[in-house]
Amino acid sequence: MRIAELSRRSGIPVPTIKYYLREGLLPPGELSSPNQARYGEEHLRRLQLVRTLLEIGRLPIAGIKEVLNEIDRPDPNVHAAMGRALNAIGPKETDSGVDGEVDELISRHGWRVSPTAPARQAVAEVIAALRRLGAISLLDRLDDLAELAGRIGEIDLETVADQQTPEDMVYTAVIGTIMGDRLLAGLRRLAQESASAERYGNRLKS
Amino acid sequence: MRIAELSRRSGIPVPTIKYYLREGLLPPGELSSPNQARYGEEHLRRLQLVRTLLEIGRLPIAGIKEVLNEIDRPDPNVHAAMGRALNAIGPKETDSGVDGEVDELISRHGWRVSPTAPARQAVAEVIAALRRLGAISLLDRLDDLAELAGRIGEIDLETVADQQTPEDMVYTAVIGTIMGDRLLAGLRRLAQESASAERYGNRLKS
Repeated sequence: MRIAELSRRSGIPVPTIKYYLREGLLPPGELSSPNQARYGEEHLRRLQLVRTLLEIGRLPIAGIKEVLNEIDRPDPNVHAAMGRALNAIGPKETDSGVDGEVDELISRHGWRVSPTAPARQAVAEVIAALRRLGAISLLDRLDDLAELAGRIGEIDLETVADQQTPEDMVYTAVIGTIMGDRLLAGLRRLAQESASAERYGNRLKS
Repeated sequence: MRIAELSRRSGIPVPTIKYYLREGLLPPGELSSPNQARYGEEHLRRLQLVRTLLEIGRLPIAGIKEVLNEIDRPDPNVHAAMGRALNAIGPKETDSGVDGEVDELISRHGWRVSPTAPARQAVAEVIAALRRLGAISLLDRLDDLAELAGRIGEIDLETVADQQTPEDMVYTAVIGTIMGDRLLAGLRRLAQESASAERYGNRLKS
């Protein structure tokens, strides 16, 4: 199909598609004449993925590129590829000064986590921020939350293991992790409102 | 203290503090002369809150204003205030076309949720996106995830109920919800890596 049809079917304006092409988020079409390219169903799928990572995943363009590179790279070791893809969409490393606390948390839950996993610093950073803001009551429940997160992580890996090909496993891990964050945030707000209604007997007004 | 000391103690540059003052994210200091204002500990605390909502909560300036308005507004009905504050930091409403599915999910879990809660649309939007992207294996586990989110929501409300004043309850609800999303995302990635190590017997490389 030509770019106009790609735009119509995806609902994405032609100038935006051209921008994605320039940024390398969408592979070039097949040239059918010096000034015209043809696009296939794989371009339509890729456009939907880019759009979703932008709008729902709220990833920056550079983050989307990293994720797409991981999805596209053929790798004999699917688990290493998964690790790289998950790190690409993970929180960035900073220095929070509470690493020891995260080490202890990981050890209390018997988790096996690489010493260089960026998520260690991400968790440390949130713990430091909660303490700085004096909102420490959530920290009293850190182990309860970690246990529930542990069960969510197991569900995530089960959905990955259900896939038939290494490419599908990496795709499922990346999409499931990004979209899963949003899904859990939404489900958590529904559950908070319901818990508040149960506890106080009236509904929260929107 | 003067603005220079406020900057030194908060680690936030003076021009940035002036920007927050202009945007109404920080209340004005007390004028000690026509050109000079004095700031107190409450300004320092507010600066830390704004910084955290920006950097870790990744809220836009307008979203931070909404949250601060809710924290500042004295309201005899703490639960209504909590509802407004949580909606202010919640996902924005869109039309996804899968509302009926979310209604059924809420009803299966016996949740009490207002028909206009923005989180309904947020969940519907993620479900629609997962289906569009062909990543449906996570949807097969939707009820398992909802059950775990339900337990997280109960923990959240318990931390709110522990607070002594209505102001502290709203503050804890807002901070706990925003920071909790980040905390859970980090814990989930640690758990995913560990579940992958357990399942495949090797650690994910970073």
